[in-house]
Amino acid sequence: MFVTGLRCFRCGAKYEMDPKAYTCPACSGNRGDEGILDVQYDYSAAKAMIHSTLHKNGRHDVFRFLPLLPTSKTIGVLPAGGTPLIPVSGLAARLGLQSLFLKDETRNPTRCLKDRATAVAVTMARAHGYRDLYCASAGNAAISLAGFCAHQGIGCHVFVPREISQTRLNWLRRYGADVHISTGNYDQAYDEAEQAGAENGWYSRNCAFNPFLVEGKKTVALEISEQLGWQVRDLIVAPVGDGCTLGAIGKGSRELNLVRLTDRIPRLIGVQSEAVQPLVKRYHGEAVREDGGTTQAESIAVRRPRNALRLLYEMRASHGHMLAVSDEQISAAQRLLAQEAGVVSEFTSAATLAGLFQLAESESLANQSAVLVITGGRLDCDF
Amino acid sequence: MFVTGLRCFRCGAKYEMDPKAYTCPACSGNRGDEGILDVQYDYSAAKAMIHSTLHKNGRHDVFRFLPLLPTSKTIGVLPAGGTPLIPVSGLAARLGLQSLFLKDETRNPTRCLKDRATAVAVTMARAHGYRDLYCASAGNAAISLAGFCAHQGIGCHVFVPREISQTRLNWLRRYGADVHISTGNYDQAYDEAEQAGAENGWYSRNCAFNPFLVEGKKTVALEISEQLGWQVRDLIVAPVGDGCTLGAIGKGSRELNLVRLTDRIPRLIGVQSEAVQPLVKRYHGEAVREDGGTTQAESIAVRRPRNALRLLYEMRASHGHMLAVSDEQISAAQRLLAQEAGVVSEFTSAATLAGLFQLAESESLANQSAVLVITGGRLDCDF
Repeated sequence: MFVTGLRCFRCGAKYEMDPKAYTCPACSGNRGDEGILDVQYDYSAAKAMIHSTLHKNGRHDVFRFLPLLPTSKTIGVLPAGGTPLIPVSGLAARLGLQSLFLKDETRNPTRCLKDRATAVAVTMARAHGYRDLYCASAGNAAISLAGFCAHQGIGCHVFVPREISQTRLNWLRRYGADVHISTGNYDQAYDEAEQAGAENGWYSRNCAFNPFLVEGKKTVALEISEQLGWQVRDLIVAPVGDGCTLGAIGKGSRELNLVRLTDRIPRLIGVQSEAVQPLVKRYHGEAVREDGGTTQAESIAVRRPRNALRLLYEMRASHGHMLAVSDEQISAAQRLLAQEAGVVSEFTSAATLAGLFQLAESESLANQSAVLVITGGRLDCDF
Repeated sequence: MFVTGLRCFRCGAKYEMDPKAYTCPACSGNRGDEGILDVQYDYSAAKAMIHSTLHKNGRHDVFRFLPLLPTSKTIGVLPAGGTPLIPVSGLAARLGLQSLFLKDETRNPTRCLKDRATAVAVTMARAHGYRDLYCASAGNAAISLAGFCAHQGIGCHVFVPREISQTRLNWLRRYGADVHISTGNYDQAYDEAEQAGAENGWYSRNCAFNPFLVEGKKTVALEISEQLGWQVRDLIVAPVGDGCTLGAIGKGSRELNLVRLTDRIPRLIGVQSEAVQPLVKRYHGEAVREDGGTTQAESIAVRRPRNALRLLYEMRASHGHMLAVSDEQISAAQRLLAQEAGVVSEFTSAATLAGLFQLAESESLANQSAVLVITGGRLDCDF
């Protein structure tokens, strides 16, 4: 393992590697903006290992990139990652792009990119003797944790908001998870989860709290680059809620450059819903108001984003752009993805295509190449 | 391409390779038992090619095994196959098995093993200038064809029985397929499909009619063996409807032995529903009566199986076994797969686990190892 330590995103304090570390003790709270930690690596040592082993590495899941992960061994969790990158020429032509690819994360074990983080969480939890994990979630992270815990035969405790859909509850029930439905919204469920987790000594699968989960998510960027023969494309587009996924993609992209597998980094494009767009506003230096708008894009309807510092850092490092789209635009994009690319995505994931159409209105995409991260495929609403 | 010709399963007549060939002209009808063709290869030439290229072949989809497929080039269809093989120790212990693996075909592009056949069909259709494909289907094959045609931007005409579920119709609509709902059952829809296909000159994606589709399906057996390091396990269990899938698995398993990648073949276990079990009866030499029973296992509720000769041939070659399970047994197995293996399968696919439990009652599975083919993951009924 090439981890050298942990560093607070807020105050910059450095700590030794501790697999049970969550947030920075020097910063007050336990929320992202209040001291989320970042895993640091010895990239020159990792570089040597990756260059000597990757070509003979037979794995196709997230642990293919073990030298860039915070664990040295694997335990046989459900195989996450290894998802295809699909060229879609028709949509590329519509957008005036040179080429367009879909990273199809609907093909993960529980139909969602979040399985990458869960694979790392469950591996670390078991390696350190935990028999129970918990998380707060609007749906997909909880379902992911439930599936992985079922496969391992360990306890899964999930805390979900009052307004969770029946579709998502059904998935949790199928896997046999211990489900706590909050009397409040996601923020209240989050607080309830952290309290129960601390009281019971369970391992956390809250991605903006446990610093190791972003490391699992970043493997999507590593895979995209490898599938493109380490030729970096211009744009990577992803939906943004807490900021973990696109922040992780930024980190993974920089790391590939640090270990000299790539010669540049892609520009990150983050997409939020018009109804809930705190990170768009913040990135553009505008006042953030909680205006109580609603959106069908449940998975990114995060009013208090917990990994904002990380996301904003990666956006700036990549000279990225953030924009917001309407539910009508997302809905049209969801239909286009199915009818012209053969990929049925969940509503939130289609925000990527809607965002790219909006970007194409404000700047030319000629001679550019883009990758859309289709984060999940669970269907919650009529489509 | 190492195809040497086509051979009729019924009369044994041999024909030259013809990518537009369907059934045997010497046998009267166009149904499986009445002259379905089998693709023949030069295995000694294919063997040399596979041994020299497989280890440096970077593909993870069905075309990884191009020397054993009836096409020499690929066109970039949706990536089918490359699905994980998941060890499940808890269920293995319950069954008294040494080890148990799930081949998770729910992770195909349209959530179903049928995508493997569709990948070959669309590739061959396009290579020979077709702009439209058709099929008859109780659901999954039609949905698969619709997804692949959407991605290619070509026409898709599907013929479905009157009683098709709204869930499946929704998937067809999402992909924008041209859907013909028959006034009758699957058999009537099949006749209507063949008539329309012939009249319009469309390419067929009917697996028990077009001989090349089984070649796509057999790749699931090739992948299983490679994932197990070419160490053949004792049992491969699959649900049986028309007989195409398990017949294809038998063919693929024999071919690996012919090209000396494996040293034996696995025993095939075929599972049908108690309500509709014509191939179980036929394999055991019992009278087949159409008793009109109903089952939730829609995908295998085939009363007039069209690839019976192939299935029976492969069952005998492997000293296999066929058995029937009740909907109650399948339902219990579906819950177990989710709660103890973390895999949410469709109802029909859970028949594999139900069948293995039934087998364990009649013979000891001690020191044996088994693979269940989890053919699909679309949820049609409450679970």
